[in-house]
Amino acid sequence: MAAMRHGALAGGKRLRPFLVLESAALFGIAPQDAVTAAAAVECVHCYSLIHDDLPSMDNDDLRRGRPTVHRAFDEATAILAGDGLLTLAFDLLAGEDAHPSAAVRIALVRALARASGIGGMVGGQMLDLTAEGRFDGGTPLALDLGAIRDLQAMKTGALLVAACEAGALLGEADADARAALIAYGRALGAAFQIADDILDVEGSIEAVGKSVGKDANAGKATLVSTLGLDEARGVLADLVAEAQAALAPFGNRGGVLSEAAAFVAARKS
Amino acid sequence: MAAMRHGALAGGKRLRPFLVLESAALFGIAPQDAVTAAAAVECVHCYSLIHDDLPSMDNDDLRRGRPTVHRAFDEATAILAGDGLLTLAFDLLAGEDAHPSAAVRIALVRALARASGIGGMVGGQMLDLTAEGRFDGGTPLALDLGAIRDLQAMKTGALLVAACEAGALLGEADADARAALIAYGRALGAAFQIADDILDVEGSIEAVGKSVGKDANAGKATLVSTLGLDEARGVLADLVAEAQAALAPFGNRGGVLSEAAAFVAARKS
Repeated sequence: MAAMRHGALAGGKRLRPFLVLESAALFGIAPQDAVTAAAAVECVHCYSLIHDDLPSMDNDDLRRGRPTVHRAFDEATAILAGDGLLTLAFDLLAGEDAHPSAAVRIALVRALARASGIGGMVGGQMLDLTAEGRFDGGTPLALDLGAIRDLQAMKTGALLVAACEAGALLGEADADARAALIAYGRALGAAFQIADDILDVEGSIEAVGKSVGKDANAGKATLVSTLGLDEARGVLADLVAEAQAALAPFGNRGGVLSEAAAFVAARKS
Repeated sequence: MAAMRHGALAGGKRLRPFLVLESAALFGIAPQDAVTAAAAVECVHCYSLIHDDLPSMDNDDLRRGRPTVHRAFDEATAILAGDGLLTLAFDLLAGEDAHPSAAVRIALVRALARASGIGGMVGGQMLDLTAEGRFDGGTPLALDLGAIRDLQAMKTGALLVAACEAGALLGEADADARAALIAYGRALGAAFQIADDILDVEGSIEAVGKSVGKDANAGKATLVSTLGLDEARGVLADLVAEAQAALAPFGNRGGVLSEAAAFVAARKS
């Protein structure tokens, strides 16, 4: 339906499908043989954006410079478009286009279900709303470093890990290679989130008082608000190095993913 | 989380898991070997109830005599509880508890994804909201008989069919037996919906003007409003007979499912 297209085909970096394709390429899998799984991962990402933007959640009117789905259509349609995309992801993974082997397909379903469920994105968003004080009289929680990291690992990290793991599953990689890609995805996910938090603060500094960062405004604890900007930049550099080190077993073939880690840290949007 | 339990463990007829267990039993599958798939189907059903009850959808305050999830908790929690249950369903089906064979598990994932997606429940709910005039200036659409049947087959029928089909998949049934269970599920689903519509009208007649049926109130076209009560009762009887006839290949073993079809038609709640 139109609302699903609006929510899924409105641009964006396409980082997750890129990670699926590039991780799979490490094992000689051609793009056309990884693109169905990549599309499924992107469907889950877009479903989560549509639901997170809803009035009862983050109440965002704009996404990627366009009206969010509930603004362009309405709330019921946005909820159903998200539900439809989440379901479509599993439908895609269950089909033979995803991979000829049923065992591989079921492993993909499992990895994606784990990443999206209450131990992953759903749980992370619930914790995030709780941390913003949504369920406790409006007082944001003072999360410590470990709690912030856990929350972000669930909310953002789990799907990035699943995207990298999907490449290993498609390539029927051995346990070591799969573990290496999971380690890469974990470090990349953490780096991605800190870079986001830094951008949020730097954006508000550049605007000199005209606007403050969205998270700071929400009284939300982030790694930057907890560590300070300089130390956060140090942690970011460490995470990029960690992500790149995890790619060592792949030698030169890991070059593109290595650059992706540097890109994620340096991005300006 | 508590909201998922509230939405999934609050009673109800458990018709869908019953259908999974009984369909599987036709092929000698013990209840403990079908219960994971049955739980997955029920998770999808409960997710759909939680989302359908939301203020932006049907805006219901009560479900099974208890506050709906968004009333007992809040809207964001209800959306996430639904998302969590939908994801949990696929997580359950992907695990070895569902069935030892990956090919069977992937077939279960596919059947459930099809039943819940835009060609099934999501699409049916969207059509239902459209038919109620939610997106068109508040004027309910005058659906013809075929359109009402298609809508109901998607919204309610698809998951009942998938429940019966799941039993055939678990039992690694041949194509004929699987087709027989799908035919049974289709007729049962249509009977279930007409019985619902009849109950809605009879309930309001009994209340003699104190309240009118919810659907009639919403100006919603149902098979009863289109056919009239007497003809609808005739169609219901025909559908029960059709469901029972579909069980012929199973002989006496089909007795429980045959009784279930009669129960669905005769139920008073």
